[in-house]
Amino acid sequence: MVGAALPETMKTSVLVEPGVVRLEDRAVPTPGAGEVLVRVGAVGVCGSDVHYFEHGRIGDFVVRAPLVLGHEVSGRIAAVGAGVDAGRVGERVAVEPGFPCRHCVHCKRGAYNLCQDIRFFGTPPIDGALSEYVLAPADFAYPVPDSVSDEAAALIEPLSVGIWANQKAGLGAGGSLLIAGAGPIGLVTLQVARALGVTTVVVSDVNADRLAVAADLGATGTHQVGGGDPGSDFDAFIDCSGAASAIVAGIRVVRPGGRVVLVGMGADELTIPVALLQTRELVLTGTFRYANTWPAAIALVESGAVDMDKLVTSHHALADVPAALRAGSTPGHVKAVITPWGGGADSAAR
Amino acid sequence: MVGAALPETMKTSVLVEPGVVRLEDRAVPTPGAGEVLVRVGAVGVCGSDVHYFEHGRIGDFVVRAPLVLGHEVSGRIAAVGAGVDAGRVGERVAVEPGFPCRHCVHCKRGAYNLCQDIRFFGTPPIDGALSEYVLAPADFAYPVPDSVSDEAAALIEPLSVGIWANQKAGLGAGGSLLIAGAGPIGLVTLQVARALGVTTVVVSDVNADRLAVAADLGATGTHQVGGGDPGSDFDAFIDCSGAASAIVAGIRVVRPGGRVVLVGMGADELTIPVALLQTRELVLTGTFRYANTWPAAIALVESGAVDMDKLVTSHHALADVPAALRAGSTPGHVKAVITPWGGGADSAAR
Amino acid sequence: MVGAALPETMKTSVLVEPGVVRLEDRAVPTPGAGEVLVRVGAVGVCGSDVHYFEHGRIGDFVVRAPLVLGHEVSGRIAAVGAGVDAGRVGERVAVEPGFPCRHCVHCKRGAYNLCQDIRFFGTPPIDGALSEYVLAPADFAYPVPDSVSDEAAALIEPLSVGIWANQKAGLGAGGSLLIAGAGPIGLVTLQVARALGVTTVVVSDVNADRLAVAADLGATGTHQVGGGDPGSDFDAFIDCSGAASAIVAGIRVVRPGGRVVLVGMGADELTIPVALLQTRELVLTGTFRYANTWPAAIALVESGAVDMDKLVTSHHALADVPAALRAGSTPGHVKAVITPWGGGADSAAR
Amino acid sequence: MVGAALPETMKTSVLVEPGVVRLEDRAVPTPGAGEVLVRVGAVGVCGSDVHYFEHGRIGDFVVRAPLVLGHEVSGRIAAVGAGVDAGRVGERVAVEPGFPCRHCVHCKRGAYNLCQDIRFFGTPPIDGALSEYVLAPADFAYPVPDSVSDEAAALIEPLSVGIWANQKAGLGAGGSLLIAGAGPIGLVTLQVARALGVTTVVVSDVNADRLAVAADLGATGTHQVGGGDPGSDFDAFIDCSGAASAIVAGIRVVRPGGRVVLVGMGADELTIPVALLQTRELVLTGTFRYANTWPAAIALVESGAVDMDKLVTSHHALADVPAALRAGSTPGHVKAVITPWGGGADSAAR
Repeated sequence: MVGAALPETMKTSVLVEPGVVRLEDRAVPTPGAGEVLVRVGAVGVCGSDVHYFEHGRIGDFVVRAPLVLGHEVSGRIAAVGAGVDAGRVGERVAVEPGFPCRHCVHCKRGAYNLCQDIRFFGTPPIDGALSEYVLAPADFAYPVPDSVSDEAAALIEPLSVGIWANQKAGLGAGGSLLIAGAGPIGLVTLQVARALGVTTVVVSDVNADRLAVAADLGATGTHQVGGGDPGSDFDAFIDCSGAASAIVAGIRVVRPGGRVVLVGMGADELTIPVALLQTRELVLTGTFRYANTWPAAIALVESGAVDMDKLVTSHHALADVPAALRAGSTPGHVKAVITPWGGGADSAAR
Repeated sequence: MVGAALPETMKTSVLVEPGVVRLEDRAVPTPGAGEVLVRVGAVGVCGSDVHYFEHGRIGDFVVRAPLVLGHEVSGRIAAVGAGVDAGRVGERVAVEPGFPCRHCVHCKRGAYNLCQDIRFFGTPPIDGALSEYVLAPADFAYPVPDSVSDEAAALIEPLSVGIWANQKAGLGAGGSLLIAGAGPIGLVTLQVARALGVTTVVVSDVNADRLAVAADLGATGTHQVGGGDPGSDFDAFIDCSGAASAIVAGIRVVRPGGRVVLVGMGADELTIPVALLQTRELVLTGTFRYANTWPAAIALVESGAVDMDKLVTSHHALADVPAALRAGSTPGHVKAVITPWGGGADSAAR
Repeated sequence: MVGAALPETMKTSVLVEPGVVRLEDRAVPTPGAGEVLVRVGAVGVCGSDVHYFEHGRIGDFVVRAPLVLGHEVSGRIAAVGAGVDAGRVGERVAVEPGFPCRHCVHCKRGAYNLCQDIRFFGTPPIDGALSEYVLAPADFAYPVPDSVSDEAAALIEPLSVGIWANQKAGLGAGGSLLIAGAGPIGLVTLQVARALGVTTVVVSDVNADRLAVAADLGATGTHQVGGGDPGSDFDAFIDCSGAASAIVAGIRVVRPGGRVVLVGMGADELTIPVALLQTRELVLTGTFRYANTWPAAIALVESGAVDMDKLVTSHHALADVPAALRAGSTPGHVKAVITPWGGGADSAAR
Repeated sequence: MVGAALPETMKTSVLVEPGVVRLEDRAVPTPGAGEVLVRVGAVGVCGSDVHYFEHGRIGDFVVRAPLVLGHEVSGRIAAVGAGVDAGRVGERVAVEPGFPCRHCVHCKRGAYNLCQDIRFFGTPPIDGALSEYVLAPADFAYPVPDSVSDEAAALIEPLSVGIWANQKAGLGAGGSLLIAGAGPIGLVTLQVARALGVTTVVVSDVNADRLAVAADLGATGTHQVGGGDPGSDFDAFIDCSGAASAIVAGIRVVRPGGRVVLVGMGADELTIPVALLQTRELVLTGTFRYANTWPAAIALVESGAVDMDKLVTSHHALADVPAALRAGSTPGHVKAVITPWGGGADSAAR
């Protein structure tokens, strides 16, 4: 291992049971071969973190033992394991939080997000990043330029969800897109679409405040559910709401040959207008995380084509994780971020 | 118009109301600019013909006036209109039965099957081909080599459905496929898959006799619904049954990243396991007819890679159309074909 | 024909022999079925116009009879032929200048730019648009919103070249691109790439002034040929120079699996580093015009994602065509535009 | 390590200098974590083996130290390292002979053949498989059914080259293909094309005997260079000759929008008809090995769609490697195979 002098212990935020998060002292881990130790700069709070906190499970993933949440992570490399370039110590990085097996058919054909043995931060039983330090495979810690803040670097993760959704939607310059849901994922999906030259992006939501944020972030139209008409003949529809009614409504306004991408998780089953899908030859698919998106996502943020900082509506210390996990009830809330070493304490600006 | 001496009238089989088909004398039409007049060699009976015959409608398509059925057509060019090479008179052809507008966005990007103004044989209010002669645009009458029989040439149409389904399924050499439904479309889909080098093709049906035909035509496995297990981890699933239970069962056995193609028409709505579709990133789509498949389909038949003649289980005269439309109730029935000028009377073999 | 009262004759600029252009009075044509008559708003001058003017030929296309040049065209519909919605009279349009046969295999699969029977404005023996009025098929005259100027609408044509090149290059958000040649096509290719979220776009040219224009239009880097290094490991290289040395240099700096797109026409033959292409599995292709790009191009201009007006460096009357064709020798020249009815006389701003 | 009792030493065939191959005793290697030890069943001789034997180098790859040749390998798992299912001992396998780093951008997007750190059997300085035992990563040793012989299993490697070439050529059912070169790679490319439903496959060569083999293996046409015409308007051209004249001739007979795939290695530079490539929008690319082809290749052999055994024209013992490397001069030679433990001694048939 190569790295600066490190403390022996670190603070870690642990979900011990639904609704109960506790700060613990844990040993600072040592990077193994091919790994880096990241001094965590910022961790974004995702809806799945909140769901584990509130319910202790998401579908088949059940929190059976104390779990560290957090999978939207940036930081600075503090130490490297065997086989990793020692020159990377001190490098600012955004961490891709799912580590695939690299050997199965999915990994070998580049669809490593479909690896059945992937270990993903903050998904039971794998601990996440709400800690002062965290380990990652060296190639999943991507360099970030100084112009990108720690918080924006942490949000490369949700940005990747938006990039992946746009790729599945097959959108390009001059296209048209309907997005259902103006939460964080809807808003990054919107920003990516605009960055890709999609010239019509209508965002639909029940909440007028969220639609105002969408308009501010580049939506060319907004549609409040229940009033009016979102438009029709869209090249694609991306659902970021998980709501069955929104999905069915969206499917109905896609042009023949267009695509429907389901990002938001909702019920296990969904009743779709299948005859319509057939006669229009719509393509319906879903996204499960992402693959190979970090470099593009970082480049988009660096170029200014998308703005992740603008999504952050609250900042929290590591001791303040419960508040961060409950920030969703605050009016105007979009995204909470936790900075284990203090807000911006390790940011590039210093 | 250029062509041999033609009669003034011809026999045409007309659906006058549900269940009632009548033979009429009609004027032999004259090919307009860019058209050919085809002396009909063979017309295959499709499930949609039967459905119009029995119910007078399919969804929004309602038979409101006497209608000529039949859209699986081959024959010999009897005359050509202005602008068509007179040398084509006498040419044996397979007719693609849907004539798009050629001007809309779908036509111009090559997806002319999605043209909203397409005129399709035997779909109200457009008359079909159960007649001694029929008109077609010159470029939708494709030359057929003498080694392909009239009946096989007529069945280029359902073969095209199978080619299109396989294209949507993204299958290639060494892949694996589950097909639900061993009717004519399932059987051509099977044959195409085998011709494409798909090495595992399991066909599922409730009917053991049909499964025996599937096995004879190259299925590497058969699965009788209700007994046993069709297998799992298929690269793709193509539904040719339209049965909701078969579709849902099929979706569940596709590998992550695989595709589901819905060919059979069933109910307007369908309840799908959407969370599974999302976490496996399955791609679900449907087919609506086909585009640009005729040359490939003819080449496959000519090469012997697929066998259309083998699907024909009954032959009928034009006066015998009602029997042909009711042939589905005969044990062992797969495909009825009508030969307006007598069985094989104009076939290449003579 | 439906339309306002029209004059009987119009002014037309005719290339009578190399170097000699003459203004003639010609009859205003009458739109046939499916056609529109366009009162020409603006015509951009392309390098091919200049080449015909100077040399009387481009490759196998030889000017054997007086020819009207001009294929970058916008205007306003003055009359419509049979079968065209009369409500379109008065509509501002950008004209796609190549009219394919709609019947061949290329047209039917959506690659109508490869149609061997295409009639293309200003390519012998087909007359172009340097005239007060011109005919076009109704579906090749695309509506243009008022926020897009006549001149920008005329330049939808070169913009389409840039869109097509980017599509062939397979570029997406966060990618990197090298462009050789900072002429009009290089500059639109650059603008499209930036609009598509390509975050690294390096433009290479021998001329520093042109590179300054490229930088102004969004190039993230410029490279003056002969000095320094353009960079390496680009996702794609698009040649807009036609220069063999630039092409070979570009091929060498594309990453494994990347693409090379040749837009600029140069010599008939080219010596390429083929072993490199093989071991890196580069994909090399060229562009021939475009297909299905007008709606996207218009949307990009309307959205402000690209700026066509900025490329126009001189404005000319119809009588002034020779000067427009010679404008290339003016320092700072990018694009000359001819406005047959006077600069902006029919533009939306009035 | 888990496995049966193994000898301590093994026979290995070593290229000590150009033209000199020597049999050595070496220690049987021990499989590390994630590895398997394969008792070698058969090793095919590739043109590259012959080239190293004769010239001591291929381009930048120079034999600077004694090298074990051989990268077309099958066998039976004799032992497994840590983390590998012990149940695999005894399994018959075909070995994919290039082991990528699994961490670079190429590996992670599924294009691991472009990995710059790949270790490839028999490419200096990595030893190959002309030995009694050889190590491989467990996931690069693919199970082979008993119906596939050891020799055919070894030839999964060249078959993969043919599969990869066909994938790059984008061919499908009913297509047409020209192949230049009727050596082993041309012949497997032919067989794969036929298995994929390509109905027109013309093979071109200077050698009439080779063309006879091609015809026997399914070519629908053959063309002896220098006499007659190979045809025109092919959907794709795959060069397996490396000969500049063949490549240029092939490019000229591909239809607009078609593809050219260069498999054969020839000179570093090649002069291509680039204006033709541009105006026809041909796509030109090359292949460098393959990725993710083994399962499909094995399935194709097992199904009988391709026949690898038919390509084997001579069988050799390990002591007989020099003769195998010189077998190319024998009339009728296609493929030599070396069986270290005796011809068929470990084949499934026993």
